Amino acid sequence: MGRNERGVTRQEDDFSAWYNEVVAKAGLVDRGPAKGTMVIRPYGYRIWELLQAELDGMIKELGHENAYFPMLIPESYFNREAEHVEGFNPELAVVTHAGGKELAEPLVIRPTSETVIGDMMAKWITSHRDLPLRLNQWANVVRWELRPRMLLRTTEFLWQEAHSAHAEKSDALRETLLALDIYTTLARDMAAIPVVPGEKTAGERFAGALNTYTIEAMMRDGKALQSGTTHYLGDNFARAFDIRYTTAEEQQAFVHTTSFGLSTRMVGAIVMVHGDDKGLVLPPRVAPYQVVIVPITSGNKASEVEHAAADLARRLQAAGVRTHVDARPQLTPGWKYNDWELRGVPIRLELGPRDLEAGTTVMVRRIGEKAKQPISIAAAPTEIPGVLDEFQRDMLKRATQFRDDHTTLVDNWDAFAMTVTTGWALALHCGNPQCEDDIKAETAATPRCIPQQGAPATGRCIRCDAPSAYDKRVIFARAY
Amino acid sequence: MGRNERGVTRQEDDFSAWYNEVVAKAGLVDRGPAKGTMVIRPYGYRIWELLQAELDGMIKELGHENAYFPMLIPESYFNREAEHVEGFNPELAVVTHAGGKELAEPLVIRPTSETVIGDMMAKWITSHRDLPLRLNQWANVVRWELRPRMLLRTTEFLWQEAHSAHAEKSDALRETLLALDIYTTLARDMAAIPVVPGEKTAGERFAGALNTYTIEAMMRDGKALQSGTTHYLGDNFARAFDIRYTTAEEQQAFVHTTSFGLSTRMVGAIVMVHGDDKGLVLPPRVAPYQVVIVPITSGNKASEVEHAAADLARRLQAAGVRTHVDARPQLTPGWKYNDWELRGVPIRLELGPRDLEAGTTVMVRRIGEKAKQPISIAAAPTEIPGVLDEFQRDMLKRATQFRDDHTTLVDNWDAFAMTVTTGWALALHCGNPQCEDDIKAETAATPRCIPQQGAPATGRCIRCDAPSAYDKRVIFARAY
Repeated sequence: MGRNERGVTRQEDDFSAWYNEVVAKAGLVDRGPAKGTMVIRPYGYRIWELLQAELDGMIKELGHENAYFPMLIPESYFNREAEHVEGFNPELAVVTHAGGKELAEPLVIRPTSETVIGDMMAKWITSHRDLPLRLNQWANVVRWELRPRMLLRTTEFLWQEAHSAHAEKSDALRETLLALDIYTTLARDMAAIPVVPGEKTAGERFAGALNTYTIEAMMRDGKALQSGTTHYLGDNFARAFDIRYTTAEEQQAFVHTTSFGLSTRMVGAIVMVHGDDKGLVLPPRVAPYQVVIVPITSGNKASEVEHAAADLARRLQAAGVRTHVDARPQLTPGWKYNDWELRGVPIRLELGPRDLEAGTTVMVRRIGEKAKQPISIAAAPTEIPGVLDEFQRDMLKRATQFRDDHTTLVDNWDAFAMTVTTGWALALHCGNPQCEDDIKAETAATPRCIPQQGAPATGRCIRCDAPSAYDKRVIFARAY
Repeated sequence: MGRNERGVTRQEDDFSAWYNEVVAKAGLVDRGPAKGTMVIRPYGYRIWELLQAELDGMIKELGHENAYFPMLIPESYFNREAEHVEGFNPELAVVTHAGGKELAEPLVIRPTSETVIGDMMAKWITSHRDLPLRLNQWANVVRWELRPRMLLRTTEFLWQEAHSAHAEKSDALRETLLALDIYTTLARDMAAIPVVPGEKTAGERFAGALNTYTIEAMMRDGKALQSGTTHYLGDNFARAFDIRYTTAEEQQAFVHTTSFGLSTRMVGAIVMVHGDDKGLVLPPRVAPYQVVIVPITSGNKASEVEHAAADLARRLQAAGVRTHVDARPQLTPGWKYNDWELRGVPIRLELGPRDLEAGTTVMVRRIGEKAKQPISIAAAPTEIPGVLDEFQRDMLKRATQFRDDHTTLVDNWDAFAMTVTTGWALALHCGNPQCEDDIKAETAATPRCIPQQGAPATGRCIRCDAPSAYDKRVIFARAY
């Protein structure tokens, strides 16, 4: 592979081309043989595994137990909840034949599992003592996409979907907000993404939900990416699937259900929030390799250098640092530097014969001030964990700065239309879905969320001048 | 729920009914709405998670990296390898419609992923430097089953499937044997199952494999359960998907591939190897709860007892013991004892006001000698880990004894036919597939494996008197 093959389009020239090239060349994903499908390669999957391990612990802490529900769902189940079927019907993949025969009733591949889980909850819940019931599954889902995009919108993707049933509406609502906190924390602490949590407007809700909450992330082209959602489903699914319980007073009542999901899309968010013209920049906490050592083995000290690199790697690994030695003999150090920059490794250690004599290694940070400096080989295992922590903090700081620099309070239509071409607009809105549609038609921007932390504000709608809704400003942006 | 609902059929009366009742009543699984599908409930899924965590580490240790491949595979891919298509065609589930339209080419839901992974390997492998390539995925697969059985044979199940490509045949063969060792170790050390590793005869091979290895477990009805398989695929898939590399001498050559998989079926094996007439018996290393504390709260010391139980649970958890307090107020202690026996918890601790005064708790082991004895509450966290280790060893010993007691060397047909009604027969066989079919037709027994550790033996075929093959005895048994 020549250097040209690794070169990528500059973000400002074509952000979309930059993205497609980076996710492929960095080895995160590849296209599958069937249209719109994706292969998650080991380097990309490892990022997902690291997110997954953390999120799994957080969801269990909330009281959920993992389980697994069938992927194939009778088609009739989707017709039981009117909004749900309307929302998902156009995206369904349908199994009509199996075992060499046509099926009596077609089976749908789950696009999400409210229906089948609702059906089982109806079976398992009888008394108020069975509540709350909290279940989570890690699974694949299929939603047919007309305009697929690796990691962001593919016909099949991986996610967790959590589902809960509660006796009280207030408990169910609280659950959706606790889940939103979990997602916000995960994005911030693992992915170094300063997402904005908030509620979706009516037109942007999940099909079948009474309230949908979201975490929205700002990409480096100023667009928004919905990166996780939580839903209060009221008793819609309880009525559709007859999920009832006997209260302490021996009355029959419907449960209130919630669901929330976060997917491999988060890996795409990491790419687009942090990447630059050299390629990926990975937050240390989700980086498959936090440190890559490149031994410089030209000359007659080759084997000493190789041994020293392997030894340093072992000591770093013992200190809990995910470390890799790039010992590929056929490639030059310069080629490797570019390669690991493309792949976004936070810290590169260059180790040559002269470094070895001096007892040092050249530490190169992927981004930031004083990016290149010699450090002591002996002290590296004690120093590098701190450097990684600092790197993680710097990434969050940089992304927060970028988000704030590209978020603008706007109070007139021209400023609004201008702002959403490069960032997010905080604007007052009337809350009328038709007005949202007009805005979308004219600017391609949609309401991303009513931010949880938004300051109180009232006035006139940015578009139609009617009185504003929500008592605060809404984030409008173009979105993936 | 009354006590009758928890009672189960005795094993000797109807082993199959016993199994179906136990997996349902213990809360391991439930039936899904579509025929042959299964819900894995939290108690069953936790067993799988514990197996999974251990196996994932072992497979990574072997050099595999986790990845994820699309579930939907173009139908034409299955026609590229002749034996593979013949073996899997009758079991395929096919998506013909998606996004509201009929697809130009139907998509098959993976029954296994050799085809799609072969296709990607062809893209990723160019040089000998790319080899070996080792990939593993945790995934769901679909195989249409006419006679579904929870955990053992369902239309959808969960598994890991590992795939590797090697330059040399010897390396690929070695990989399949290393994988077989991993499965043998996992079964023994986690599931307390003394599986017999060995090679399958030609008639029992995976569709497309040159060699198939298996671990076979003996159930308590004397039948065998194939519990994990590894395959040397030669260059069959390399030729079908054009997986070639350039050798160090600049020649083009096909790779040699392997695959190996272990599924949620292992949870079914645990049920049928260890269970008894009271229900499940879980090996401590895979038990969701290793200890359940039942507080006896009748009388006026209820709150002291509850506090002591919670405190003991915390101390046990701090000592690394998975502990649960059954505080359900509406149920009697006796009901709970039966319930946790049904659910196979290794150790139950009964704690009442008098125990509390004496500073002791009554420890009840699920099986074994001296099953019931008082132990000091203060010393429980230091003593119980050792008791659990001993329990795990005892279970393996008991299962090994059972396996050996029900495995018989047979040298004449009558003894063979008798033996396979209650256990395994070690017999000489000619190696002729037609003769295998005759044996199956007459006794329902099939060759389970040529055991790796089998002693050398030659002579005449147990069925047809032709000279024996394999230079050792073959295990024949009825199987699930």
